Amino acid sequence: MNTATLLISCPDRKGLSAAIANFLYTYNANIIHSDQHQDESENLFLMRVEWDLADFTLDMNAFQPAFQPIADRFGMHWQVALSAQRTRLAIFVSKYDHCLVDLLHRYKSGELHCDIPLIISNHEDCRALADFYGIPYHVVEVTKDNKAEAEARQRELLQAHGVDLIVLARYMQVLSHEFTAAYPQQVINIHHSFLPAFDGAKPYHRAFARGVKLIGATSHYVTEVLDDGPIIEQDVIRISHRDDVDELVLKGRDLERIVLSRAVKWHLDRRVLVYANKTVIFS
Amino acid sequence: MNTATLLISCPDRKGLSAAIANFLYTYNANIIHSDQHQDESENLFLMRVEWDLADFTLDMNAFQPAFQPIADRFGMHWQVALSAQRTRLAIFVSKYDHCLVDLLHRYKSGELHCDIPLIISNHEDCRALADFYGIPYHVVEVTKDNKAEAEARQRELLQAHGVDLIVLARYMQVLSHEFTAAYPQQVINIHHSFLPAFDGAKPYHRAFARGVKLIGATSHYVTEVLDDGPIIEQDVIRISHRDDVDELVLKGRDLERIVLSRAVKWHLDRRVLVYANKTVIFS
Amino acid sequence: MNTATLLISCPDRKGLSAAIANFLYTYNANIIHSDQHQDESENLFLMRVEWDLADFTLDMNAFQPAFQPIADRFGMHWQVALSAQRTRLAIFVSKYDHCLVDLLHRYKSGELHCDIPLIISNHEDCRALADFYGIPYHVVEVTKDNKAEAEARQRELLQAHGVDLIVLARYMQVLSHEFTAAYPQQVINIHHSFLPAFDGAKPYHRAFARGVKLIGATSHYVTEVLDDGPIIEQDVIRISHRDDVDELVLKGRDLERIVLSRAVKWHLDRRVLVYANKTVIFS
Amino acid sequence: MNTATLLISCPDRKGLSAAIANFLYTYNANIIHSDQHQDESENLFLMRVEWDLADFTLDMNAFQPAFQPIADRFGMHWQVALSAQRTRLAIFVSKYDHCLVDLLHRYKSGELHCDIPLIISNHEDCRALADFYGIPYHVVEVTKDNKAEAEARQRELLQAHGVDLIVLARYMQVLSHEFTAAYPQQVINIHHSFLPAFDGAKPYHRAFARGVKLIGATSHYVTEVLDDGPIIEQDVIRISHRDDVDELVLKGRDLERIVLSRAVKWHLDRRVLVYANKTVIFS
Repeated sequence: MNTATLLISCPDRKGLSAAIANFLYTYNANIIHSDQHQDESENLFLMRVEWDLADFTLDMNAFQPAFQPIADRFGMHWQVALSAQRTRLAIFVSKYDHCLVDLLHRYKSGELHCDIPLIISNHEDCRALADFYGIPYHVVEVTKDNKAEAEARQRELLQAHGVDLIVLARYMQVLSHEFTAAYPQQVINIHHSFLPAFDGAKPYHRAFARGVKLIGATSHYVTEVLDDGPIIEQDVIRISHRDDVDELVLKGRDLERIVLSRAVKWHLDRRVLVYANKTVIFS
Repeated sequence: MNTATLLISCPDRKGLSAAIANFLYTYNANIIHSDQHQDESENLFLMRVEWDLADFTLDMNAFQPAFQPIADRFGMHWQVALSAQRTRLAIFVSKYDHCLVDLLHRYKSGELHCDIPLIISNHEDCRALADFYGIPYHVVEVTKDNKAEAEARQRELLQAHGVDLIVLARYMQVLSHEFTAAYPQQVINIHHSFLPAFDGAKPYHRAFARGVKLIGATSHYVTEVLDDGPIIEQDVIRISHRDDVDELVLKGRDLERIVLSRAVKWHLDRRVLVYANKTVIFS
Repeated sequence: MNTATLLISCPDRKGLSAAIANFLYTYNANIIHSDQHQDESENLFLMRVEWDLADFTLDMNAFQPAFQPIADRFGMHWQVALSAQRTRLAIFVSKYDHCLVDLLHRYKSGELHCDIPLIISNHEDCRALADFYGIPYHVVEVTKDNKAEAEARQRELLQAHGVDLIVLARYMQVLSHEFTAAYPQQVINIHHSFLPAFDGAKPYHRAFARGVKLIGATSHYVTEVLDDGPIIEQDVIRISHRDDVDELVLKGRDLERIVLSRAVKWHLDRRVLVYANKTVIFS
Repeated sequence: MNTATLLISCPDRKGLSAAIANFLYTYNANIIHSDQHQDESENLFLMRVEWDLADFTLDMNAFQPAFQPIADRFGMHWQVALSAQRTRLAIFVSKYDHCLVDLLHRYKSGELHCDIPLIISNHEDCRALADFYGIPYHVVEVTKDNKAEAEARQRELLQAHGVDLIVLARYMQVLSHEFTAAYPQQVINIHHSFLPAFDGAKPYHRAFARGVKLIGATSHYVTEVLDDGPIIEQDVIRISHRDDVDELVLKGRDLERIVLSRAVKWHLDRRVLVYANKTVIFS
């Protein structure tokens, strides 16, 4: 099915729903999913609506000029996306390959609606895997001294391939502020703890030392502040005193895979709206 | 806040959202929550919309005649409910009191938006608890021979107290078809298994015998077919070989309490719509 | 069944299991449960063994002198407890009564193997509930100025009633170091977050502000450092953007009840061993 | 570390623990893990003990004659396994490759302590994947008419490769009684429902039709009765009315992978004991 998805956020006001519904009905939209949310504490209206383009009488090239007057009236932030326009996704990876394997298999099986024009790594380790899935693999070495050049090279590659989403699949380098500022809400990371607990380095070791009874994983958009961006998804798994750090790492891997893949899938399906350093997931 | 909630189900058709949104906007409704669902396999449109009555310019006594033309146009099943009109809830209980204790505490703490004019039991056991919460307690003994009279007496009590929701809080008698037919989607039961597994008697014993690794509880509307009505909520808890049947019963109690209370709360908040022997929960 | 439970921790060494098993066999112990754990990183051996006293030929009054030579040989910390000696538990509560209600119902239904000689509160609010369960209720007001006297009065009450476990069931006062030092591993608190995230005040508000996707609760032994003692149990529940702070509080209550009651039950059943600011739960 | 693991089940009797502990101590065993369980309802004693072979003074070739007298005294079923003797595992697969991908990645990353000498399939589809991991891939076509010959060919392959564990990774053919009888407790299947609910065909479709709020997956040993063998592991995931059958299939895949891999890992680590059509998991 060929669909369009409209994401809106704006101050909450009477008449919003009617204005949007009337607009879509005017052009004969067949609405498939519609979901909205009012955040009272922020007086914010957030909406996701998806419709079948089969009977839609407005040429999508003319959507912007047609919709803008309504957007202006209500002071909307908005974006519209077509299912036919697949997101172009780049995966960054270091040596741990469990998230990469998982993402590539989901991609190949059609679970992730995207193109993956390239994988970027600071190591050679995952090249065979990339080859198996037929995805170009670029090694950009990163050292203490060459960080700026390395990022310049990475951004060159991303631009050359028209990338609009970057997934850090256990990529072990911290991106600079310049980099993350250039891709706002376009870089998804997986952190191997239940944030805000154990942000930063070695979360499994610290979870073991603290004696927690559950460990977690968190996927989030990357911002300037380390491990502090809007959380997209989290999950936990029970552990016991019988689990040493190695066991935590193993159990955590399963969480990392699932939590990251959910976040990526929701982003690709345009189900995520960010506000106030949080996310709304229109699931 | 004084609100109205409209629940709608009808065949899915273009213009539905616009028609409803326009109707509400015409009378200056301040929409607080709106949620809709399209079930493709049934071609069904389901919606819940809640609005603040403060600025609403239509007298709610005139709602029915004003809205009926729209309902007719789209072939809607619909109902509207006011937050000010509290559901009148009766609890049926036998000897196990854990669900009753839980419901009464939630009621008293304001978590359940309802009145509880009476508790009906086939035993004296829970009378002190009912007294503590100041709720009239009626014992209607049920034997093999007096079932029809007992139910007649129960229904007399329910009608006398204007009851519109019955909660079976581990009530150990099976209601007759006549009884359940008189209260369609108005009787909520808690079954102590993960339905459809272990329907019928002694689910914990059978779960133990089968060696399952999780046990569950299910709240559902009661229909003519035992343990087969529309499921409102389910949850599970992990068990191990160390748990004997007594432990399963203990662990299960916590599930029963929570699963039943969620179902009751959602029903009271008009979040449940039934179709095709299933529920939509507008959470 | 009348049982004894032995809890042991000591440096791990060969022959430990054999020495303990032989000792118990010598006196004809019928072992019901036996569980042990080796913590490699600490080179520690931890064990819990429970046996039926029916056929046991050693008088339990003579247990200490009989077992001490083995304990000395292996440098054991150990304790033995009899099921017939019920722990004497005091509940501290302020105004929120949901954990208190839960604990008292579990106590009355026989789920918690203890006596509850008294409840201490800094408010009158929960007196009716205490009366319903027939448990003496002592109000000890706590202000900024009288903290020392208030704690002196509390400790007087605890000693007078022979209390050996204190459960803080949403008690909103921080205990002094003197108090907690007097009851090492004998004070169990429930904190309404997934520790170490959101320790300290207003965890639900902070969880809402951070936009987490799960909220949690943690039961732990109280130590000198706030919210830092050995964790006994934790659990989480999923939330969404639809949940405002009030909803988090409601959902959190269910967690608090269950997480606290599990911790108390395990402590009463002598299933908890503390080491290195962590717990082993012999479940 | 080079270890031995002893698994025992026998009627529960006094002196069992002492006899085993003494035997191991006699030969200077350094016990790493020891776990036991008494099933009261069956009067059964079950034990798993693992020790480091470094200091063990008994040649493992002489273990059987040395231990048999104790086994005879207590009527034990027992087996001993060496960590150095890796289980030889065959994977059966049809067209769905998500479990296969998962198992192979875990195998390669060292998470599964086994050798995988071959993969058997009734289709060509997964050959490239097998090649990528360097594992011989044998296609044995199965039709209504050739089932007996096909199984004969499969068993020939298994024997030729010394296989002692078969994992059905979404293998869509039902094995004959002759086959399963030849590999008792040596065939692990993944069923895509929460057994005993939705045994047999099309469980996701039936879960959707029934309107359950959670879906599950179950790994179990295969016996003569379809989907009725001893359950090793189960897990569930929450679904909502927004999930159609395709979504259930997607969400279920994640469960299938994890539930199957846990069962395989526990079996390989000799953590599973079967009795009374159930399993004890010494985790």
